[in-house]
Amino acid sequence: MGMKIFLAQQNYHIGNFEANTAKILEAIDEAKKQGGDLIVFSELSVCGYPPRDFLEFNDFIEQSLQSIEKIREAADTIGVLVGAPSRNPVPEGKDLFNSAYFLYEKEIKRVVHKTLLPNYDIFDEYRYFEPAYEWNIIEFKGKKIAVTICEDIWNLGDDPLYRICPMDELIVQNPQLMINLSASPFDYVHADGRKGIVKQNVAKYKLPMIYCNATGSQTEIVFDGGSLVMDANCDIVAELPYFSEAMNCVTLLDDNTFEEPVVRKAAEVPIVQLMPDSLDPEYGIARIYSALIKGIQDYFGKMGFTKAVVASSGGIDSAIVLALACEALGAGNVQAVLLPSQFSSSHSVSDAEILSRNLGNPYDIIAIEPVFNAFSEQLKPVFKNLPFSVAEENLQSRIRGAMVMALANKFSSILLNTSNKSELATGYGTLYGDMAGGLSVIGDLYKTQVYALARYINRDREIIPANIINKAPSAELRPGQKDTDSLPDYPLLDPILYQYIERRQGPQEIIARGNDAALVKRVLKMVNSNEYKRNQFCPIIRISPKAFGVGRRVPIVGKYLS
Amino acid sequence: MGMKIFLAQQNYHIGNFEANTAKILEAIDEAKKQGGDLIVFSELSVCGYPPRDFLEFNDFIEQSLQSIEKIREAADTIGVLVGAPSRNPVPEGKDLFNSAYFLYEKEIKRVVHKTLLPNYDIFDEYRYFEPAYEWNIIEFKGKKIAVTICEDIWNLGDDPLYRICPMDELIVQNPQLMINLSASPFDYVHADGRKGIVKQNVAKYKLPMIYCNATGSQTEIVFDGGSLVMDANCDIVAELPYFSEAMNCVTLLDDNTFEEPVVRKAAEVPIVQLMPDSLDPEYGIARIYSALIKGIQDYFGKMGFTKAVVASSGGIDSAIVLALACEALGAGNVQAVLLPSQFSSSHSVSDAEILSRNLGNPYDIIAIEPVFNAFSEQLKPVFKNLPFSVAEENLQSRIRGAMVMALANKFSSILLNTSNKSELATGYGTLYGDMAGGLSVIGDLYKTQVYALARYINRDREIIPANIINKAPSAELRPGQKDTDSLPDYPLLDPILYQYIERRQGPQEIIARGNDAALVKRVLKMVNSNEYKRNQFCPIIRISPKAFGVGRRVPIVGKYLS
Repeated sequence: MGMKIFLAQQNYHIGNFEANTAKILEAIDEAKKQGGDLIVFSELSVCGYPPRDFLEFNDFIEQSLQSIEKIREAADTIGVLVGAPSRNPVPEGKDLFNSAYFLYEKEIKRVVHKTLLPNYDIFDEYRYFEPAYEWNIIEFKGKKIAVTICEDIWNLGDDPLYRICPMDELIVQNPQLMINLSASPFDYVHADGRKGIVKQNVAKYKLPMIYCNATGSQTEIVFDGGSLVMDANCDIVAELPYFSEAMNCVTLLDDNTFEEPVVRKAAEVPIVQLMPDSLDPEYGIARIYSALIKGIQDYFGKMGFTKAVVASSGGIDSAIVLALACEALGAGNVQAVLLPSQFSSSHSVSDAEILSRNLGNPYDIIAIEPVFNAFSEQLKPVFKNLPFSVAEENLQSRIRGAMVMALANKFSSILLNTSNKSELATGYGTLYGDMAGGLSVIGDLYKTQVYALARYINRDREIIPANIINKAPSAELRPGQKDTDSLPDYPLLDPILYQYIERRQGPQEIIARGNDAALVKRVLKMVNSNEYKRNQFCPIIRISPKAFGVGRRVPIVGKYLS
Repeated sequence: MGMKIFLAQQNYHIGNFEANTAKILEAIDEAKKQGGDLIVFSELSVCGYPPRDFLEFNDFIEQSLQSIEKIREAADTIGVLVGAPSRNPVPEGKDLFNSAYFLYEKEIKRVVHKTLLPNYDIFDEYRYFEPAYEWNIIEFKGKKIAVTICEDIWNLGDDPLYRICPMDELIVQNPQLMINLSASPFDYVHADGRKGIVKQNVAKYKLPMIYCNATGSQTEIVFDGGSLVMDANCDIVAELPYFSEAMNCVTLLDDNTFEEPVVRKAAEVPIVQLMPDSLDPEYGIARIYSALIKGIQDYFGKMGFTKAVVASSGGIDSAIVLALACEALGAGNVQAVLLPSQFSSSHSVSDAEILSRNLGNPYDIIAIEPVFNAFSEQLKPVFKNLPFSVAEENLQSRIRGAMVMALANKFSSILLNTSNKSELATGYGTLYGDMAGGLSVIGDLYKTQVYALARYINRDREIIPANIINKAPSAELRPGQKDTDSLPDYPLLDPILYQYIERRQGPQEIIARGNDAALVKRVLKMVNSNEYKRNQFCPIIRISPKAFGVGRRVPIVGKYLS
């Protein structure tokens, strides 16, 4: 006997109600075939997470409610917990709740609302939703179940972000099981943190927990899945895969333990989520790799594209992006373009050619010097005899940008950007030049992490030529140029950036860690005075706890440490 | 006798504590010289509004607190109400409050916290701040004062956004005066709405109100000032200017009326803020003009730039931008660049030349055909004999983009973008081409509003040549091209866009207004499938209740009406 509970870890397409509903119905059908009592989906599964300002459209909410109606019809002999927005019936407060619909016997038996609305980093939930202010357990087939949504279970510890804790309100009603519907995104520390928080809740409330997470990438945010079931002893009795869709089931027995056989393992997980105190370029590199692959695949798949173009310079950044793109999309779908200028060293082209031969992807070589000369000729009456300056350096970069965009437009492919986080942080890049592209693949990896990723990619055989890894980084926009002409060495730079960006440390704290005071001041000034460039940058696949983009919102016109 | 109260309506620079504090101290000094009892500043005046994620830096908060210390020293014989973040002393909840510091006798007498934290459109306050949950009036020189901050007074009406109303909590303590510190941004309906809300509060609570707003532009957000004092009879007894700094004072007598002479006028203002039901291109055009001028001036001033460059095509969009830039920065600081191609009509150059002669700004003419030919030559081995397509159209636009950026880089100027809201909405523009630039001047004006603005600019004399206003809009990227080849006529298009973007109406509601169903579907699809372009666009001076950019957050990878 017991209650057979399915977890459906799925990859949704935001706003695609038809596809999402079909996917949900398919899982319900499968669970029914296998005799399931209850099936649990992830947060806002019906519309996809995060729906952002689509939520402000009445039409969008209507479509979501119509999908719920279809799912309700399927929830006959099986209980269904599915996530979707619901309307606030009273005029006071915002018009929507972020809800879990409990469907059974073809009825909406209960709509549970999320209490704690994350509004930090990439999250904007209080923009749309009213927090719950009433809490009630669900009774189903003799079990009392406490249903919460994502953030609701995260408010533990000594410095809680919210003044209320919904499980504290629910526990007094004597539930026997906790179920949490999540859309909890990946970063390289978060997977551990997530297991830790489930364990903390299980330990505090002494109840088993079913934790169902979303998977798949939504523009820049990668949901890594890893749904899990933990029994009241803090043992993990089921763990779903990472970065892929899956369905799994457990049977909760009358004594509130889970039926054997289960994938039982002691939850040796950190009890809290900890951002590393200092940057470790090797940390989490294997899962970062997986997240980047998933991020590329879903961006292309959900945008309806199959082909990519990459400006391949012979440097490590473009090499990494090319290798990732070939893995994600298939080498035949990835066009490399080598764009040498008069300042390019001979190895730039030859290294890039070796790389593409290793990867097996097509490549073209297009010299930019004739175009540069044509520009210079036209600009001469205005520039007169002014010396070569950053204007000419940027112009070369922009010629490359226009060249690869012409290829992207002609062959219906998406340009993958190759900027790294160290460059983006310091503004070491050219708007509309090397900063062009539809998706930034490694814009959340510092240069020292890019090297670690190169070593990871080369772990079994040399895919990225050693010469590309070993050469001194250069933009090659003037004779003999090196990154270190403009920037500190990356092993000095990256730790300062990490303290400032990820850990929000100020100049005094960063200097106190032993960094040179003048250098710290110079680096922070570079970061803050280049916000205008990052503001025009494409989405960056997010792998860290603090990526540039939607999760970091800094004034463009400001005067702080700049 | 009575209480002499100063309002200081100032323009702050976000994060520039030195400049902001100096400005605040100067006003205090002036008020003391004039025998002031109390001086009121705007919301978050010490750090500037909106400080965004700078608030996450402990160092930033420390600098703000140090500024408060300096202001406290100056608040000896005068009471000072100044806005700044304060720390939440308890661990529960977010770490900061959005506060008004009441300083007097060189002491921090009270710190009042904001209760209602706007989190819609451009606002993100719940990202940083804990809402107040205790309310107390301030007693000062025999007057009981209810102090609130901006949004705190906006929660009236039948469908309130919040479940609490702080003035309802304060009124039971029998205050005699309301003071509100605001940072309330401009849009073409909001100035009326603001007066309306002050009047609603005065009418409801039967108390006079001192309302102090910020002025000046912060990247895309323009604060228009218009601080005011309303007596308990709903008469405006003082109104400060719009779009400029000012200081004013009123004297509140013992009977709670204001001393004569005052600038008394009956508050004939709408009782609620209403977004027009349909797009009226003439609506608020004079104040839109003022907002755009202020937006340009402050962007350049606060970024530390004096010179602009504009790609002048002979079309109305660039003509308007050029005229605004010349007014804002001085014609001598605005370089026009005419970039004809083989597809440009003869009048394009001559009209643009006449315009610049009217405005008195310098201009250059640079043909792009030789550069286009050089690109084509290099691309030929890859493009082979594929027909002329959008790739070549975009390439011309990107050559122009690279050309004007080369000038901007060479002469240390900022490229002003000339895209309008109709183009941005439909994706009718080229990334890194005509979508390039540091600041979008008219990106929040639909094309029909651009025409209205042209008429306004020409109200006294013909600045923008009639031929520019009268010609059919064209990108001139292929022979005989017209905007209407790709887009509906603007008088058909703009009302649909307005319903969808400003009024968040869905396809059914828009069709019900009498628009063609197929056209509506086509237009909404254009809007939603071009989010990826807008995501890489520069800041847009915001003049409407819903501008593209920071206040509109739509998934890039989604599938909704697209």
